[in-house]
Amino acid sequence: MDVIYSERHRLRNSKTELYAGELVPPFECPERMDYIRDRLLDRGIGPLREPEPAGLDPVLRVHDADFVSFLETCWRDWKAAGYAGEAIATCWPSRAMPRLVPPREIDGRIGYYALASETSISEGTYEAACVSADVAVSAQRLISGGKTAAFALCRPPGHHASTGMFGGYCFFNNAAIAAQGFLDGGAERVAILDVDFHHGNGTQEIFYSRNDVLFASLHGDPLDAFPYYLGGADETGSGDGEGLTLNYPLPPKTRFEAWRAALADALDRIRTYGPDALIVSLGVDTFKQDPISFFLLESADFTTYGADIAGLGLPTLFVMEGGYAVEEIGINTVNVLEGFLGA
Amino acid sequence: MDVIYSERHRLRNSKTELYAGELVPPFECPERMDYIRDRLLDRGIGPLREPEPAGLDPVLRVHDADFVSFLETCWRDWKAAGYAGEAIATCWPSRAMPRLVPPREIDGRIGYYALASETSISEGTYEAACVSADVAVSAQRLISGGKTAAFALCRPPGHHASTGMFGGYCFFNNAAIAAQGFLDGGAERVAILDVDFHHGNGTQEIFYSRNDVLFASLHGDPLDAFPYYLGGADETGSGDGEGLTLNYPLPPKTRFEAWRAALADALDRIRTYGPDALIVSLGVDTFKQDPISFFLLESADFTTYGADIAGLGLPTLFVMEGGYAVEEIGINTVNVLEGFLGA
Repeated sequence: MDVIYSERHRLRNSKTELYAGELVPPFECPERMDYIRDRLLDRGIGPLREPEPAGLDPVLRVHDADFVSFLETCWRDWKAAGYAGEAIATCWPSRAMPRLVPPREIDGRIGYYALASETSISEGTYEAACVSADVAVSAQRLISGGKTAAFALCRPPGHHASTGMFGGYCFFNNAAIAAQGFLDGGAERVAILDVDFHHGNGTQEIFYSRNDVLFASLHGDPLDAFPYYLGGADETGSGDGEGLTLNYPLPPKTRFEAWRAALADALDRIRTYGPDALIVSLGVDTFKQDPISFFLLESADFTTYGADIAGLGLPTLFVMEGGYAVEEIGINTVNVLEGFLGA
Repeated sequence: MDVIYSERHRLRNSKTELYAGELVPPFECPERMDYIRDRLLDRGIGPLREPEPAGLDPVLRVHDADFVSFLETCWRDWKAAGYAGEAIATCWPSRAMPRLVPPREIDGRIGYYALASETSISEGTYEAACVSADVAVSAQRLISGGKTAAFALCRPPGHHASTGMFGGYCFFNNAAIAAQGFLDGGAERVAILDVDFHHGNGTQEIFYSRNDVLFASLHGDPLDAFPYYLGGADETGSGDGEGLTLNYPLPPKTRFEAWRAALADALDRIRTYGPDALIVSLGVDTFKQDPISFFLLESADFTTYGADIAGLGLPTLFVMEGGYAVEEIGINTVNVLEGFLGA
């Protein structure tokens, strides 16, 4: 399986994450990729290929231009304001302050475009987000060109990024950009299966009222887990997209048997939808030892569900999302791919 | 002028404020009150009197019960979750995640009730907020009982707190609670004049569609200053409250002459409204040396505008809000009162 990867993910190297009332080293760190890359090489999965620069056009197919511009200039503006730390939102348009005009001041502007403040913006963040989108686009184009599967080893991840907001370690929605790429390349329908522990709120928001993308997500119940304010089973799409958003919120301590039953239902729905391609938003933070999640999957389970996904028989693009138990992130990620390939 | 004050404000003693991407000692600190109290004593303004406990009934007249319950239990729940720092929101219902159900998990619940994350909740926060509301209620009742003026030396401040959200160092909206107290005590109309540097977004939200409270606020343009997402001149009230919200957003480096012209307009509008009582949300962060604001008032200007306010000839309740240049906060606060008394 071709793997698209760039060392330039290291440009995303913030030092602070707001977590539990403290500023800590980010869970979403460059070392995550080293574990995955090394495991891919150990297991002979590849080749690893550099992405082609795709420019902003694919990004602007799913993200608002003002949001992209904000991400490009945020760190420069933050430094120019004289702020000492990394750029973190402290205030936001809320239900008590519904005005939707971006402020001039960067401290207000970042709050306008942020859906969470654990994620700081710093030197290189925008550049890494662009490269990560390139990785997704290059992998998508391989499949549009005839490959049956590819792995976009994206970092930073993307599924929390919405049309116009960043957060949850995500800036550009790599999976959504790839889905739009399939459609622009001639596909009629695309399915996105999000197996990350966290709900893919950004992906859902982007495609919520469209009928050319089905979005299915298995995740920790948002009443108990980030991103908290989206991801309920009652969110099923709107307008032309009615019925094409499928959420499977699952409770704390969910084990593989229950998780796999939800996956089987999602795969059935995808099969019925009949997409031309499948995108898997691949987060491996469902692992029992993940430090910020609460499912109980074992490493062998990842192999099993990789095979389940292969059962669809669709051209399949894996897009890397989360997973923070650094020791096992490589093993579990590659297990999914091996399960898929070996099925 | 009677001053209502309690040393129990010191129960609000958080150690961290998220500012400029760092966790710093809060600008809203207990020492602020020492400067004001000492200056009051130096200038012979008083007596200083303890508040009477008023219970939660006055608070619940303007705040949602679920919000009050959240504030009461937040710190206990945060500690029970094992989080190491003070309670700070990291994610919130945004325009990309509009679901309005409070999550179960405290990390999500605090984001549901927060409009900003600079303000941490810690041991004693709720208790101090209750005492601060008591201070406002006791001062209001003095005036309802016949006094012509009183000073509620509230801490924590209140004007950013909305019906159901905290932030901007504010938890319960003391000025709004006092306004409702006047009405419940027989007043037909109350005016709130907010001279704090920051827009009183909470007070505006609470009374936005009501015709028994006029709200006028002079403040840094929200395109340039916290709270960023409310406080525009085009926000004039709705329904029965149409025309009774008056915002005067002013640009960086505004000097007293321009500020006083806006005040004169607000005072004219209040005079026309004909309220039974006036509440002044008294923040002195309009001072030229305030560390987080951008107006250029001199200390003598505070005396001048105190006299301007006295010109209305209304029973007047001063409620303490912001002001962070600790050296001068006492002088400037007392200057307003002396200007008012000496007019």
